Amino acid sequence: MGFWKTWFSTSESTATTKTAAFEEISAEAKSNSSPNSDASGTARIVFSTERDIDLYELEELCDAVGWSRRPLRKVKKAIEHSFLVASMWQVRGNQRRLIGFARATSDHAFNATIWDVVVHPDFQGKGLGKALMKYVLKKLRSEEISNVTLFADPHVVNFYQTMGFMADPEGIKGMFWYPH
Amino acid sequence: MGFWKTWFSTSESTATTKTAAFEEISAEAKSNSSPNSDASGTARIVFSTERDIDLYELEELCDAVGWSRRPLRKVKKAIEHSFLVASMWQVRGNQRRLIGFARATSDHAFNATIWDVVVHPDFQGKGLGKALMKYVLKKLRSEEISNVTLFADPHVVNFYQTMGFMADPEGIKGMFWYPH
Repeated sequence: MGFWKTWFSTSESTATTKTAAFEEISAEAKSNSSPNSDASGTARIVFSTERDIDLYELEELCDAVGWSRRPLRKVKKAIEHSFLVASMWQVRGNQRRLIGFARATSDHAFNATIWDVVVHPDFQGKGLGKALMKYVLKKLRSEEISNVTLFADPHVVNFYQTMGFMADPEGIKGMFWYPH
Repeated sequence: MGFWKTWFSTSESTATTKTAAFEEISAEAKSNSSPNSDASGTARIVFSTERDIDLYELEELCDAVGWSRRPLRKVKKAIEHSFLVASMWQVRGNQRRLIGFARATSDHAFNATIWDVVVHPDFQGKGLGKALMKYVLKKLRSEEISNVTLFADPHVVNFYQTMGFMADPEGIKGMFWYPH
């Protein structure tokens, strides 16, 4: 079980100091997103770990990618009990628009599992999904999480592979159980 | 550990209540475990969601199945921040022995992920792993969790399939990322 060992024994990593809730995007993704900047170049993409998200705005984002609606009461609870809540915003002057979201559950020590990764269709294909995931991974690393997992739909397996995720490493299978 | 006091002062014929942290095993698994009962038949298998587990006893259990050791500080943190902590005990008179363990992370709303499922080698092959998993699933269902996931090593994929878990449903892939 060399694979499990790899991350079970990865115990200590450098803790980084807590940064501001909002952070501007990396230069790389910023340039990719430039078609969305206005003529004066004032539109920016920022990230946040702030979990006080407008649930209706989040629902709108999820609607835009065709996800099934979920009871807001449960979405609220899930956000409250997620280890990490990451959001991506387009900011133009004093206006901001929620354009991406992801969250992770965790035991705060070894494992984190990323759920609900979404980028608004208007902002897809610009490297913003990658930028959002980089932000999420950076945050999880800063919390000493040594094993980051997720469950990828078939059409995004390649995307996550380019981010360094491995499918079924050493034959380890992601498995699901649903109540009957 | 006040509950132990309660439990030990309870007569064997007393039915367990829903709220009790300790629950006796189902008849099915009990009969499977009979080879471990002493001549007078007083050895019993009980389950608990009590998270005040002796970390050295847990380490001993994990050692017995050959897992890599993990810093106890992190194990403690992981247990504190798990949504569910399930343990399985052999009880003989006023002696108890930790023979199984599992835990789950969760967002308390939609998803739970089961980690660290372990049954002591002396107690494997008696249906106790299945009993432990049934206990875990029952607990998760009672909390309205609608999606239970785990990552299974190749040699236990079949075991989880018999429990109703599906590998890669609709092509959804379990993926891993760990710091370089």
